[in-house]
Amino acid sequence: MDYEAFFASHLRRLHDEGRYRVFAELERVAGAFPRARFHQDGTVRDVTVWCSNDYLAMGQHPVVIEAMQAAIGAQGSGAGGTRNISGTNTLHVALERELAKLHDKDAALVFTSGYVANETTLQTLGAMLPGCELYSDAFNHASMIAGIRHSGAVRKIFRHNDLAHLEELLKVADPATPKIVAFESVYSMDGDISPIEEICDLAHRYGALAYLDEVHAVGMYGARGAGVAERDGALGKVDIVQGTLAKAFGVVGGYIASTAATVDFVRSCGSGFIFSTSMPPAIAGAALASIRHVTAHPELRVRHQERAATLKRKLAAAGLPIMPSVTHIVPVFVGDAALAKQATDLLMERHSIYVQPINYPTVPRGTERLRLTPTPLHSDDHMERLVEALQDIWQTLGLSLRAAAE
Amino acid sequence: MDYEAFFASHLRRLHDEGRYRVFAELERVAGAFPRARFHQDGTVRDVTVWCSNDYLAMGQHPVVIEAMQAAIGAQGSGAGGTRNISGTNTLHVALERELAKLHDKDAALVFTSGYVANETTLQTLGAMLPGCELYSDAFNHASMIAGIRHSGAVRKIFRHNDLAHLEELLKVADPATPKIVAFESVYSMDGDISPIEEICDLAHRYGALAYLDEVHAVGMYGARGAGVAERDGALGKVDIVQGTLAKAFGVVGGYIASTAATVDFVRSCGSGFIFSTSMPPAIAGAALASIRHVTAHPELRVRHQERAATLKRKLAAAGLPIMPSVTHIVPVFVGDAALAKQATDLLMERHSIYVQPINYPTVPRGTERLRLTPTPLHSDDHMERLVEALQDIWQTLGLSLRAAAE
Repeated sequence: MDYEAFFASHLRRLHDEGRYRVFAELERVAGAFPRARFHQDGTVRDVTVWCSNDYLAMGQHPVVIEAMQAAIGAQGSGAGGTRNISGTNTLHVALERELAKLHDKDAALVFTSGYVANETTLQTLGAMLPGCELYSDAFNHASMIAGIRHSGAVRKIFRHNDLAHLEELLKVADPATPKIVAFESVYSMDGDISPIEEICDLAHRYGALAYLDEVHAVGMYGARGAGVAERDGALGKVDIVQGTLAKAFGVVGGYIASTAATVDFVRSCGSGFIFSTSMPPAIAGAALASIRHVTAHPELRVRHQERAATLKRKLAAAGLPIMPSVTHIVPVFVGDAALAKQATDLLMERHSIYVQPINYPTVPRGTERLRLTPTPLHSDDHMERLVEALQDIWQTLGLSLRAAAE
Repeated sequence: MDYEAFFASHLRRLHDEGRYRVFAELERVAGAFPRARFHQDGTVRDVTVWCSNDYLAMGQHPVVIEAMQAAIGAQGSGAGGTRNISGTNTLHVALERELAKLHDKDAALVFTSGYVANETTLQTLGAMLPGCELYSDAFNHASMIAGIRHSGAVRKIFRHNDLAHLEELLKVADPATPKIVAFESVYSMDGDISPIEEICDLAHRYGALAYLDEVHAVGMYGARGAGVAERDGALGKVDIVQGTLAKAFGVVGGYIASTAATVDFVRSCGSGFIFSTSMPPAIAGAALASIRHVTAHPELRVRHQERAATLKRKLAAAGLPIMPSVTHIVPVFVGDAALAKQATDLLMERHSIYVQPINYPTVPRGTERLRLTPTPLHSDDHMERLVEALQDIWQTLGLSLRAAAE
């Protein structure tokens, strides 16, 4: 087999379909968010970033930066081993205690990423609970799908946020069989929210565990930032919550929180947990500082929502086709992969605005979009420039505008 | 189903078999390596760590600490997104260039961990090369096994380092079928080394790609620290090399290096790569500084090997049952899970020496062991105290000594 030819031909196909990903090389500038420096072909220029998942700009907050630098000075750059072999650190232990408290659970467990947290937990539970059935929302993230698939458990997919369909599937199952219902609170590509309490109640009625991914919600929803489950008064109904230390907390890593036995079981049996060098103490220290800050500052969440609402209003007023979203995620419809790519290329070239086009397979074909993520640090001025730039690009590419919404 | 009872009963079984893992909570002290502070039940004391994978103590090197702190000050704590959505950083690009150069390859790709690098790469290749067959050394790491299993490809296991068995399997296969031979250079539990050139030649003779995990070798073997393949003059024969930024480089994260098309293919198709927030710029910056330092200082590798040889000599002279190892990894045979645990508990209690027992399933039952990892910073004095402590414990537990080897 000619492997090089095979790889090259696959890559050519991605190019031909307009799906080949070109990375935008950024240099972040601490304190300048949402501004950053964009490097391309030996040139550098200042741009405004409108697609970061550093949703609250905590990744550049002095409290986080100082905690991380201090931990490195005290403990060095790495953890020194897997959690089991010399790699458990006082800062991991403190972080897990804080996360358990945040979600009002007995215990928490930290993983190298949110992806690994989802994959390892669902895979471990699905494989080890005898005959386990996994009920998965059709729009679940790739990491949950990976965990479910790799578990080898029976997989049933229910239509997105469709309680009736979920119940239809649950009620024909054997009541004695172990079951997990896996879903998200905020779906990151559309910005919609699931009915957490109703899904948990349904799961429990049929003897299933409720597994909730709050990756796009932790830090941003609920009085203390524990997520949509906290906002909706459903913290106690979720059996296992999964979250991230990247995104709103601005660092990196993922976690689960649950009962002591559940967490200890995943800790003891999860291959992706056991056999990975643990996160650097400084990452745990930075995450800890960030969580404490975000938890104690609800005004960050108020400002975040206000910024998102303002951006949506400005876009709608300009007739730009924003898609319905009840969250901080603001998708703008394009509907074609090549046009979405052209639009973002022009935004960068003409207006020094960086937005990544979202294409298949991340979203269904024909629903290609720009996905904007306003943060507390995006000013009215940033928004006005963005709206003007989008109007310019929409006109250049002949994309359709709506009648102004207000 | 009573999930809590199920989890609790599984955990009880681990307890009963002596396989329940209790984490040792450490506080690292930058500059004091191999000394650290051990936290237990509200008390703290200074201990000597003998089981870290921070093999060259680079995790506390001033060059690495300063690079990491500087990058945080300049760029903040997090990357701000997945590689594709605002999370590609100038430091990621520089790090990947450095890794490609280190391994004498066209390109490299960084993952959140070595586990994810192995799992994602093997899974992606195994699933997407049509009809792919994966030939896997029987002692391969859990992360390779995970990738191979999850790929759904045909899996053939050859006896550890057994060229004849590998050839036996390869020669009955269809020559037209895509194939990958996956193996390690240094096997971390026994400390033995594979015949890299011979395995690569065999793979190529039968039209297979050679995939080599150098996780326990990068930084430590070869003139520049590119691993055993460099030491043995076989860099050019390895098609895909996988390595880690934890262990010898003292930070965290994993990578592959290969041809441009291979790397671009995994970059474009690997779910565990695409859907994870990228590593913090500061982690990339620290890894870059560490690689440059380790590459430029071959005397670190000389000292490392000298320390390992000295430790082996001292242990043998004291009649302690060291297992054969041609590397920096020094296993001491116990042969029983409960005794291995007791031995390490006593080492800590009586002598303030931290070693983790290595039990099933990490090693086969009946071969339970202590696994010592001498570094350039373990002095003669540290070694003498360790040997005395082991002699004391061996006597207390009635473990057998050998006739002194010299």
